[in-house]
Amino acid sequence: MSGIKSSGEKRLVLVSGRAHPQLALDIAAELGSELVPTDARTFANGELYTRFDESVRGCDAFVIQSHTAPINEWIMEQLIMVDALKRASAKRITVVAPFYPYARQDKKGRGREPISARLIADLFKAAGADRIMSVDLHAAQIQGFFDGPVDHLFAMPVLLKHFQQKLDPATLTVVSPDMGRVRVADIWSDKLGAPLAIIHKRRDPLVPNQVSVHEIIGPVEGRVCLLVDDLIDTGRTIVKAAEALKAAGAIGVVVAATHAVFSDPATELLQSDFIDEVVVTDTLPLPAEKQWDRLTVLPIAPMLARAIHEVFEDGSVTSMFDGAA
Amino acid sequence: MSGIKSSGEKRLVLVSGRAHPQLALDIAAELGSELVPTDARTFANGELYTRFDESVRGCDAFVIQSHTAPINEWIMEQLIMVDALKRASAKRITVVAPFYPYARQDKKGRGREPISARLIADLFKAAGADRIMSVDLHAAQIQGFFDGPVDHLFAMPVLLKHFQQKLDPATLTVVSPDMGRVRVADIWSDKLGAPLAIIHKRRDPLVPNQVSVHEIIGPVEGRVCLLVDDLIDTGRTIVKAAEALKAAGAIGVVVAATHAVFSDPATELLQSDFIDEVVVTDTLPLPAEKQWDRLTVLPIAPMLARAIHEVFEDGSVTSMFDGAA
Amino acid sequence: MSGIKSSGEKRLVLVSGRAHPQLALDIAAELGSELVPTDARTFANGELYTRFDESVRGCDAFVIQSHTAPINEWIMEQLIMVDALKRASAKRITVVAPFYPYARQDKKGRGREPISARLIADLFKAAGADRIMSVDLHAAQIQGFFDGPVDHLFAMPVLLKHFQQKLDPATLTVVSPDMGRVRVADIWSDKLGAPLAIIHKRRDPLVPNQVSVHEIIGPVEGRVCLLVDDLIDTGRTIVKAAEALKAAGAIGVVVAATHAVFSDPATELLQSDFIDEVVVTDTLPLPAEKQWDRLTVLPIAPMLARAIHEVFEDGSVTSMFDGAA
Amino acid sequence: MSGIKSSGEKRLVLVSGRAHPQLALDIAAELGSELVPTDARTFANGELYTRFDESVRGCDAFVIQSHTAPINEWIMEQLIMVDALKRASAKRITVVAPFYPYARQDKKGRGREPISARLIADLFKAAGADRIMSVDLHAAQIQGFFDGPVDHLFAMPVLLKHFQQKLDPATLTVVSPDMGRVRVADIWSDKLGAPLAIIHKRRDPLVPNQVSVHEIIGPVEGRVCLLVDDLIDTGRTIVKAAEALKAAGAIGVVVAATHAVFSDPATELLQSDFIDEVVVTDTLPLPAEKQWDRLTVLPIAPMLARAIHEVFEDGSVTSMFDGAA
Amino acid sequence: MSGIKSSGEKRLVLVSGRAHPQLALDIAAELGSELVPTDARTFANGELYTRFDESVRGCDAFVIQSHTAPINEWIMEQLIMVDALKRASAKRITVVAPFYPYARQDKKGRGREPISARLIADLFKAAGADRIMSVDLHAAQIQGFFDGPVDHLFAMPVLLKHFQQKLDPATLTVVSPDMGRVRVADIWSDKLGAPLAIIHKRRDPLVPNQVSVHEIIGPVEGRVCLLVDDLIDTGRTIVKAAEALKAAGAIGVVVAATHAVFSDPATELLQSDFIDEVVVTDTLPLPAEKQWDRLTVLPIAPMLARAIHEVFEDGSVTSMFDGAA
Amino acid sequence: MSGIKSSGEKRLVLVSGRAHPQLALDIAAELGSELVPTDARTFANGELYTRFDESVRGCDAFVIQSHTAPINEWIMEQLIMVDALKRASAKRITVVAPFYPYARQDKKGRGREPISARLIADLFKAAGADRIMSVDLHAAQIQGFFDGPVDHLFAMPVLLKHFQQKLDPATLTVVSPDMGRVRVADIWSDKLGAPLAIIHKRRDPLVPNQVSVHEIIGPVEGRVCLLVDDLIDTGRTIVKAAEALKAAGAIGVVVAATHAVFSDPATELLQSDFIDEVVVTDTLPLPAEKQWDRLTVLPIAPMLARAIHEVFEDGSVTSMFDGAA
Repeated sequence: MSGIKSSGEKRLVLVSGRAHPQLALDIAAELGSELVPTDARTFANGELYTRFDESVRGCDAFVIQSHTAPINEWIMEQLIMVDALKRASAKRITVVAPFYPYARQDKKGRGREPISARLIADLFKAAGADRIMSVDLHAAQIQGFFDGPVDHLFAMPVLLKHFQQKLDPATLTVVSPDMGRVRVADIWSDKLGAPLAIIHKRRDPLVPNQVSVHEIIGPVEGRVCLLVDDLIDTGRTIVKAAEALKAAGAIGVVVAATHAVFSDPATELLQSDFIDEVVVTDTLPLPAEKQWDRLTVLPIAPMLARAIHEVFEDGSVTSMFDGAA
Repeated sequence: MSGIKSSGEKRLVLVSGRAHPQLALDIAAELGSELVPTDARTFANGELYTRFDESVRGCDAFVIQSHTAPINEWIMEQLIMVDALKRASAKRITVVAPFYPYARQDKKGRGREPISARLIADLFKAAGADRIMSVDLHAAQIQGFFDGPVDHLFAMPVLLKHFQQKLDPATLTVVSPDMGRVRVADIWSDKLGAPLAIIHKRRDPLVPNQVSVHEIIGPVEGRVCLLVDDLIDTGRTIVKAAEALKAAGAIGVVVAATHAVFSDPATELLQSDFIDEVVVTDTLPLPAEKQWDRLTVLPIAPMLARAIHEVFEDGSVTSMFDGAA
Repeated sequence: MSGIKSSGEKRLVLVSGRAHPQLALDIAAELGSELVPTDARTFANGELYTRFDESVRGCDAFVIQSHTAPINEWIMEQLIMVDALKRASAKRITVVAPFYPYARQDKKGRGREPISARLIADLFKAAGADRIMSVDLHAAQIQGFFDGPVDHLFAMPVLLKHFQQKLDPATLTVVSPDMGRVRVADIWSDKLGAPLAIIHKRRDPLVPNQVSVHEIIGPVEGRVCLLVDDLIDTGRTIVKAAEALKAAGAIGVVVAATHAVFSDPATELLQSDFIDEVVVTDTLPLPAEKQWDRLTVLPIAPMLARAIHEVFEDGSVTSMFDGAA
Repeated sequence: MSGIKSSGEKRLVLVSGRAHPQLALDIAAELGSELVPTDARTFANGELYTRFDESVRGCDAFVIQSHTAPINEWIMEQLIMVDALKRASAKRITVVAPFYPYARQDKKGRGREPISARLIADLFKAAGADRIMSVDLHAAQIQGFFDGPVDHLFAMPVLLKHFQQKLDPATLTVVSPDMGRVRVADIWSDKLGAPLAIIHKRRDPLVPNQVSVHEIIGPVEGRVCLLVDDLIDTGRTIVKAAEALKAAGAIGVVVAATHAVFSDPATELLQSDFIDEVVVTDTLPLPAEKQWDRLTVLPIAPMLARAIHEVFEDGSVTSMFDGAA
Repeated sequence: MSGIKSSGEKRLVLVSGRAHPQLALDIAAELGSELVPTDARTFANGELYTRFDESVRGCDAFVIQSHTAPINEWIMEQLIMVDALKRASAKRITVVAPFYPYARQDKKGRGREPISARLIADLFKAAGADRIMSVDLHAAQIQGFFDGPVDHLFAMPVLLKHFQQKLDPATLTVVSPDMGRVRVADIWSDKLGAPLAIIHKRRDPLVPNQVSVHEIIGPVEGRVCLLVDDLIDTGRTIVKAAEALKAAGAIGVVVAATHAVFSDPATELLQSDFIDEVVVTDTLPLPAEKQWDRLTVLPIAPMLARAIHEVFEDGSVTSMFDGAA
Repeated sequence: MSGIKSSGEKRLVLVSGRAHPQLALDIAAELGSELVPTDARTFANGELYTRFDESVRGCDAFVIQSHTAPINEWIMEQLIMVDALKRASAKRITVVAPFYPYARQDKKGRGREPISARLIADLFKAAGADRIMSVDLHAAQIQGFFDGPVDHLFAMPVLLKHFQQKLDPATLTVVSPDMGRVRVADIWSDKLGAPLAIIHKRRDPLVPNQVSVHEIIGPVEGRVCLLVDDLIDTGRTIVKAAEALKAAGAIGVVVAATHAVFSDPATELLQSDFIDEVVVTDTLPLPAEKQWDRLTVLPIAPMLARAIHEVFEDGSVTSMFDGAA
């Protein structure tokens, strides 16, 4: 038979945008590899440019970007990187977006709204992405927005491990800050062997169109409360919840969240006396001025590195979370 | 300038599958039109066949099907109808699926599961559908599964109107049968001006891996409870909820749901003494043997007909639900 | 150069729907492998569910399903399996459909009909199938309905081998049951070195709109007739052909077909005295109640297994049928 | 409501390639319209160019081309015209290909062959065609190769009308020139009320690998034979069939075909004494040097014009062929 | 025939992003219409949101955005608006991007670069755009990056009209600032009846890797020089060119460009004594602090409004530029 | 874990159309391989046919074709080959088109023109091509017309090497034959260390609508002029340029071009006394009758072979042209 034969070899390649270089470096270090040297620039009028300094032909590329502010810049940079990889003959391109951008616009709440979370999936597809890897999607249905595999990772094992060493189930209550997050809190409650409480934001009948009453359901008095959420944006919801818990007799309030969006004035608000500790991961960058003494930042790179390894080696990502999904 | 000019005229056309012919006839009657005569058959080996007896060239076609059991038959029949319309030069094809099939498989709960609700959207697209119209999607995110317009209708106005005439807010409590449906119950509570209660299914610490305790949160004793859900399948969840409510002192339990799936043994279970009335719509067919005296079936055809009219005439579907979405 | 290198290894994986488990087991046995353990279920309202119990990441998956009644169930199950494989990062997905569903609706015989055989190809594509493998397509043009490779296998070698050991060319005539299958019968005639006869169904001029006269063209009297077709559905055509052959002096009638659809009342009809033997393959399941003493079922698994092997190992499927295609 | 309203008007536009300008002019004349003035050129190296001299924005364009030799030139010219129309904002583009190119390569007869008839459909789609209109496809399954509407017209009414005035059913036999065209001949036989005969080309057992024996089945002696086929290419098959019929005692042989491909040496061969008349349509151009006294060319333009009119006005093309399809 | 008929009416709708509201208002005023009231917002973490306050169902929508800094924000806002329109059943969506973003990255100058101008076209397509309208594309080939109609407008008539009233051809020379823009300058030279000069930037052999010598080819001494370009970004090229022209004896230097990108320090540089006047259009917003006395800004809205009108009414955009393209 | 494992091996396969067999043979020889034996034919009516005589399953196929006249034949043949490879399960298909067809129609110069260079990219994509490899694209933007990787090679190193051995920079001038090719000439000038001259074709004010004056800018008198272009079609432009150079005192004129299209009357014209030597590559076939003594044809096969090798082995094509791109 004619032709030339060669034993195929596959090559994993990590490239990173400029939003959160430390995270990418950490992932590379975990994998015992380096990032592909990249020339990334912003031109005078704001247009972005990326060029890889090494061949990526035939590689299994993971494009790491963290979608912090200015979030649209970083989305566009990642799209441009995917386009460059596609045109440079990368074999497979995985978008690594630890915090999925626009995840909260996952449906039309009213007519004539966009579904921006679906749009983001479509844009990555159009640019040439074959796969997406993300952590703690705001709604699990977002997996279905992408026409291809989505590796959905869970930060819970990382966070749980931290708390299991520090909190006593006997005096602990897991608290959901609102009705929409109860399911996640329920899993925490189960894993920690602690009871569940819920905060129900109700409209005050005397003040129209305004949420003002925070009803608490469940055992709180004399207990340490662990408020859990997938993300903290401005921090307003969490601080009000903590205040309500303390008012109801909680002896401690600890907050756990995967994504530290920390839009202003989150850094200021979260240092409130109502909150004893905040624990997050570094899916998003936290510069020194957004950190304080009672904030603990757990590294997400080991989990991402392991998932990338499993994807590259055709192993199992599911097995990383036995039953946790 | 060369060529032939003609004033364009548009034509609305209704075609129906065989799952729930009465619903299609009702919609046609509401619109003052008829269904396109159709030759629909099942061959000896189960393959389906559809042919339209009239030209549908250039028309704005609405393909009505109700996804009751055997649900896969009716999905395939609707796909075949869409294919036939596409090849017969219909100008625009809207899939009318009042009960969206496979809506509950809207995410991967675990690795290696399908996302069948997305698959359904993809199949309709592949067959040639331009648009989808549905009622009370199990998760609103399913709108984002289709790459095109989805008209999402809400049965709440129909159901609300029924209850506003019959129930007294002073003694009424709206109840969510589990944590996952609280948001919908909250809207009902607001619309009816009645308090909210929630049933929390908890694992019994003494019986591993089994849901057995039904905690009730909120005012129930001495009140009439309105249990609300989007669909009733086998009825088990609802009956257990009703039993728990009665045990907690409720003086009446009324159930409201949009989609009467009523898989066995729903019809039997729902005639339980714990339930005083069940109110549903006819998005799914309810043959005589699945009806009983304390069941009320409200017609959904007027709402579907109005939405079809708005779509055809470039009006507004959003305006049908001022603020209800 | 940065990155991590690894020698690629490829992995063949067999998954099976629930329509014809024995066929899938036979194929696995032939290949010296096993089926991937799978959780397949039907929910109360008829919706289907499939989950693979092992990682399929990066694999070369073959999804085996047999399209017997209830045919639309099994189509949908196979589509759901393909979706689950795609989302679980299978590298390549081949739909194995030994009997291609809806193959007889391969064109618009009249206006406003569907082309369901093309629709089926589109649905598999939409779900994520990369390739299709099938046996004896009703029309070879169906290969062109799929936008990708179709491995078209031929059962003739299996059937021929059976008859070459049993029938004497000197007294044998190959018979086509109607005008549309003459080309296939011609190949049989050539392979077996036996003359060809054709049955021409003509309209009786005295009975309008009804096929009633079976003209036989070719040598039949005093000979053993081998009626060949690609499939037997209700069996009506074949039995009438056999009756006509016997009336014309045939001393024996043997029937050969690839696909034993056997819709009612095929099992009853085919036991007619006019037919001496029926030989089929097991592309479709034949439960005990559809078998009888004069029916021979030849296994198709060896051929499918070999084709799967060739596809996986980048060998040649064409070479399995030297000149037979 | 904001915005500007305008009553929509639609405009039919005819454009033509250079393969068969007379056909396009005839269609325009039938419709009472003209062709869009077009600048069509061939550059020195053979590259083609087309530009429309009038605006085609928003129009319903029909792109007429006849696929005669050099057939690949004319395919490419039509593709370029479709591209130009798409980029010039035509609203809908219908490829009018009376003789569908590459129709005979409609399946893989052997491994590693193309399916060029499907490729042609894909190329038209890629260029921007929304619909295809063609006459007497070599295989009806080709309709399924295009992902969109195909208007399949039949020349039989045109040809039948010609013969009904000239031939006497009492002495007429319809003849299929080989096994593959029997189904078409059967319809002719039915429409004309004349018996059917078939020519079976068999391998001569004494001369390996060569078709040499022409068996005739059916009444031929002393009758006028009407040989029917969809196309005549080099004419070899038809002339051999005519010779065999005359040898078997036919008193006349008349040939009817839709597409006069007439590749060399068809013009010479068809003037054989064995053939008394040849009747074709002008789906392909027939220059004077390819015509002779016993050749009748019937105009296809009236049928194409009527079909274009029905498509433009959202009428029914199916109704043009009551039951003939 | 069944169904409901209605005379179709079409509706033009203008929506605008937040980058350059005045331009959109000017276009609406030219058309005698208004913009659709829109709720556009930026959330705390930088995510954008758009909702239209009126039905856009069935409309012909033009989405106006001006791609000034922060350019990636405005790209994303326009994509989100297109997504919202698509899901709200707009009939046709035209992206109006007077200054096409990322136009200068229109090819891979080196390996592993993106082709961002093509990516932008792909993103608009993925979001749901049917058409693009733009002014003076940096390279005309960008038209070919979009799979659909691109209306390419030319600002030259607007600019020419301004200069024809002010400059005397007898003493005028048209100057191309570099080799790459000669073709455009050639057209200006032709239209104004003035000779052409070119500035050739050459590497100084004594200073490696640096452009330092500005050779001037053509008549400059004692003449008024009109430097023409498609865009002015930082202004460095233009100012150096002007300096070289003055040094070569030019008695006046006037600059004409379509797109006033004016990235820092353009505003400062362009007020150089070497430049007597700068004339641009307002395809990009020019806030007061970016304007000065010797800058003339010509309105582009009349041209865009006329093109939108032609597109909506199926007129001719080509006829707006007789021969100018 | 279930399944069968196998070490993947990859196989490079070369197939060739019939336009320029020698080029394909040369490439194969350079690679130490052979072409896949192929049955390629033209049927009587001009339809083409290709079948590969060996399995190509799973291979990395390079489809070599040279787009000389009859150019549309060869485009279609290459499309058919790609289709056959796709359907025969080739793993990856690279179209090798050394001279990209229709490259000069890369934009709409006027309204209602096609963009045929984009169309060609779309056709290759539709047929199944994954990648394109080409040499010296007429406009680099054509890379962006294909939705996938384009390997753009440069013949300059091949041509440069020839001239560096023969021409003395001290007496050499590089000349661009018109304004549009100045950028390429500039690179030559830089590489050879020789000055640049430009020929400016201007309209003669006395003769309307005709290019007649050839202005020469740069040092020409007493020097050897090297005219460089990407392609030579009819040769008219080049000969007029040579004539002008000689008239301006050039002592020698040498012409270099990558693509020798040589449409009539190029062969005759280029033998003009004004031209001392013509040097081209063999991207297009040059039969004996198109060659003469002062024509030098350099082989392009070594460069194509090396690029194919790099693509197959996941090496770097960029590194073949350090800085030259």
